[in-house]
Amino acid sequence: MQVRIRGRLKHFRTVEFDLPSREVRLIEQRLLPHEFRVIGTRDFRATARAICDMVVRGAGAIGATAAYGLAQGALAFRGRDLPRFEAHVLHVFETLRDARPTAIDPVNAMLDVRRKMQAGTSVAEQQELALTAAREFADEDVAHCRAIGAAGTPLIREGMRVLTHCNAGWLAFVDIGSATAPLYAAHQQGRRFHVYCDETRPRSQGATLTAWELAQQGISHQVIADNAAGLLFARGGIDLVIVGSDRTLGRSGEVANKIGTYTKAVLAKRHGVPFYVAIPLSTIDWNLRHGEQIPIEERDASEVLGAWGLTKAGHREYVRVANPSSGAYNPGFDVTPPELITGIITPAGVFRPRELWRQRRLLGG
Amino acid sequence: MQVRIRGRLKHFRTVEFDLPSREVRLIEQRLLPHEFRVIGTRDFRATARAICDMVVRGAGAIGATAAYGLAQGALAFRGRDLPRFEAHVLHVFETLRDARPTAIDPVNAMLDVRRKMQAGTSVAEQQELALTAAREFADEDVAHCRAIGAAGTPLIREGMRVLTHCNAGWLAFVDIGSATAPLYAAHQQGRRFHVYCDETRPRSQGATLTAWELAQQGISHQVIADNAAGLLFARGGIDLVIVGSDRTLGRSGEVANKIGTYTKAVLAKRHGVPFYVAIPLSTIDWNLRHGEQIPIEERDASEVLGAWGLTKAGHREYVRVANPSSGAYNPGFDVTPPELITGIITPAGVFRPRELWRQRRLLGG
Repeated sequence: MQVRIRGRLKHFRTVEFDLPSREVRLIEQRLLPHEFRVIGTRDFRATARAICDMVVRGAGAIGATAAYGLAQGALAFRGRDLPRFEAHVLHVFETLRDARPTAIDPVNAMLDVRRKMQAGTSVAEQQELALTAAREFADEDVAHCRAIGAAGTPLIREGMRVLTHCNAGWLAFVDIGSATAPLYAAHQQGRRFHVYCDETRPRSQGATLTAWELAQQGISHQVIADNAAGLLFARGGIDLVIVGSDRTLGRSGEVANKIGTYTKAVLAKRHGVPFYVAIPLSTIDWNLRHGEQIPIEERDASEVLGAWGLTKAGHREYVRVANPSSGAYNPGFDVTPPELITGIITPAGVFRPRELWRQRRLLGG
Repeated sequence: MQVRIRGRLKHFRTVEFDLPSREVRLIEQRLLPHEFRVIGTRDFRATARAICDMVVRGAGAIGATAAYGLAQGALAFRGRDLPRFEAHVLHVFETLRDARPTAIDPVNAMLDVRRKMQAGTSVAEQQELALTAAREFADEDVAHCRAIGAAGTPLIREGMRVLTHCNAGWLAFVDIGSATAPLYAAHQQGRRFHVYCDETRPRSQGATLTAWELAQQGISHQVIADNAAGLLFARGGIDLVIVGSDRTLGRSGEVANKIGTYTKAVLAKRHGVPFYVAIPLSTIDWNLRHGEQIPIEERDASEVLGAWGLTKAGHREYVRVANPSSGAYNPGFDVTPPELITGIITPAGVFRPRELWRQRRLLGG
């Protein structure tokens, strides 16, 4: 998407590969929204560290980063000995996989790259195929997000007030994003609408990343406290909700997403406001039967007990907000049942949540 | 309530009057939860400044502060000329009233003191009566909160997990508080229970003031992000909700309270969890007919766009969290309809919200 740098718009992807320097180029997301900087990782170890240290986050984005990291590692090999090359590639694979052990996207992305490399009969051929495969993976991520945008954009009508939660934007993918895709597509078609970004405590991805993204594209928006949506719903101030998902159960239609999503779905239902979830197909879990089987990650209490931000002096600092002797309970996501969800926006079209299982052939299940 | 100072418990009220020094003694609430300090205001002008500058906040607490401030101003008068004394008292009244122009409690408290002063026939008599009346006002505030505790404590059963929002604790009154009163009473009776304190963004009164209060009393509690309650409700982790109120409509049974209260009431209803509102009688508005008539204060965007807390170096600082070029919408409270409220806990007993009007004689309407 476009980023405004010194008044001029320039196009960036969240993740790219620069062939001359053999660097993976990443938007340094930890500095956002206060500073925009693209960094380059010089070898696969540095790329793994960037994943591990949260320079890059979001399912699609870390998948593409790992794919490029694998190609980067493969390209660094000198020599023609294929068995030694393959041992080296396996080492690169494991290093990148271990950078974010709970995530499935980097593993799937790298398996895809390795499979495509097999067609090559020399080190040089396999190196070239690795890079091509990584580029294809990134391009496919973009194509999927664009298809989500095409499927979802008819939902965004002129003058609408749209609520979103957390960041399922282009920073979480290679470009465009999932929940933001219909918004960006509608904006490009000249439709005017207003977005309320839930702050999304405790990590504030709505106030930081989503608000920053929308500001870059010039889309009308405001940040609200997570507490404020109830009043907006009650006063008829929200016409549509779109969120992303960390895992959507293909069998039950339940949606796991950032903590607070369920609350918004309950409010939307009460006030008759459509509630949509936008997802790439890789987000669908075809195995689990019930939302209760989804493990709820419990995160560090310090996230709830304080906040990161910029001081007056311009330093990025953590401040302790809560009472020093109090603890916190900090679950990372919640599960929204299908009866609260109007539709699931996928690259293959919009479906009711209970339709997913019936459409599993179409949806890659 | 008790405050733990260097390991020892000591009793404090939020507001007191020290006769020898003629100072109004106030807990410096802007320093909480990071520092506990009692300050003294030397004259009525300093007392007015303390109200204006938010050293003290909360309906009951600023009512008592104004009452003591009026007595303090009256006591400072030298001479026996009654008309000049009365002109002086009027000036004190106006100074204290103008310290928080939108609040009704300071005005009502001071009118009460002035009415009781009329019984005196000399300056000295009126001065003495002023102090007695201010003390009575503060003691009545405490008695009302104690009665709320007595009415509400049967609701708090052994092992319960209770959710509260914002701060309707003793820091908002002279002592004990409203929403906290049943909790403190049950705790004193030896009942064990656990309290979840909603963080209450944007001003975080739950994470700062309520968590601090509960920690002082040794009551088991945890802070949660406002987003986390939905998951707790869904997993059967909350047995009861108690909140306070800024204004409760006696005619309709609607409750205006801190932004986010309505959302918790909607969740409680969906999950069949009792939702109670604890209020002193002074909170009931017998005039307005509908919640839509309640003006919703829109507060400064900076509250949503950042947070106040303690830096690592120990300085109290505001950090900007949100994207620098984004704005915010920041409504201060919302309105909860009677069908979502199980009961209103008052000093005169617990009532269904629609019963208030029928019981208006009993409830001072």
